[in-house]
Amino acid sequence: MKIDEAKKTIKEILPEKRYIHSVGVSQTAGELAKKYGGDEEKARLAGMLHDIVKYFSDDELKSMILRKPGTWSDCLKYSDKLWHAPAGAIYVQEQYGVNDSDLLNAMIYHTTGRKQMTLLEKIIFLADYIEPNRDFPGVDEVREAAKQDLDHAVLLELQKTITHLLSKQQSVYPKTFEAYNDLVQEQIN
Amino acid sequence: MKIDEAKKTIKEILPEKRYIHSVGVSQTAGELAKKYGGDEEKARLAGMLHDIVKYFSDDELKSMILRKPGTWSDCLKYSDKLWHAPAGAIYVQEQYGVNDSDLLNAMIYHTTGRKQMTLLEKIIFLADYIEPNRDFPGVDEVREAAKQDLDHAVLLELQKTITHLLSKQQSVYPKTFEAYNDLVQEQIN
Repeated sequence: MKIDEAKKTIKEILPEKRYIHSVGVSQTAGELAKKYGGDEEKARLAGMLHDIVKYFSDDELKSMILRKPGTWSDCLKYSDKLWHAPAGAIYVQEQYGVNDSDLLNAMIYHTTGRKQMTLLEKIIFLADYIEPNRDFPGVDEVREAAKQDLDHAVLLELQKTITHLLSKQQSVYPKTFEAYNDLVQEQIN
Repeated sequence: MKIDEAKKTIKEILPEKRYIHSVGVSQTAGELAKKYGGDEEKARLAGMLHDIVKYFSDDELKSMILRKPGTWSDCLKYSDKLWHAPAGAIYVQEQYGVNDSDLLNAMIYHTTGRKQMTLLEKIIFLADYIEPNRDFPGVDEVREAAKQDLDHAVLLELQKTITHLLSKQQSVYPKTFEAYNDLVQEQIN
């Protein structure tokens, strides 16, 4: 699947605001890939597609995940806000024959992260948080960090995300927590 | 082992300030046990003993844990501040023949918590945080919660502890995180 086809598809499927966000993630992902030596084209494509099934119903998302179970299936025991990420990867694989496993994993883990993320996974995880249309407390700090050190920016995003969930006494998906601990250990070593 | 013997031992082993803390935890644990239907005597004893090896060297603590490996041994991969808890349980078992598994587990998990804590484990975990000599931001909120609802107070303590570790970008012991998620899920259900 090429970026132009993906952009057209996303414009058709998603509401205006989410389309604009997807274009923002795609652009930011391309910039991060350029800066940190990743595959720009793949990063732009993953960024464009990452939220493709965001507005599907919970039932549709759940049935997709159950149809193609994997290590991500445990997300069904957690917030339904997590479900569109693995379901999106399953969708683009089934509908458009996207088979690049790194791209699919970047989609699967774009909301939660996981330990030992690849460069592309980190880029999409971060781009989703800092793309120019995002506006929430702390986002500028992560944007600045992303200009200096990719791992530090990802760690900062994980720290802020988990702290936010804790402040609302919501559960934290275990892989998010593992991603945090993993990067803390790496920064120490 | 009886409480008077434990108190005398703790006074001999620990520095004055830590002895006073241990007496505080013992008293608070007894009060919590009374309020929530636990075994007051056992709670007082566990509270008195919980920090017994706190001032042993890291090497001594580590060798105790390695001598008696269990599910707690993974704490060696995390902060050395966690080591005295399982090591203390091993110590009182070896030195004084303490064999009550609930009491030993309350010692083992008094710093970290774990999912599906017993009443005694919750009591010691909480008493260690709120005993009258403790004075840090947020402790009064947990003290107030402890008067109303044990699980809510434990959840609040976990929330504050993890948030504090995140704010310092320190790793979080997985069982602490599991304890948090476990109680969040229980409060929802």
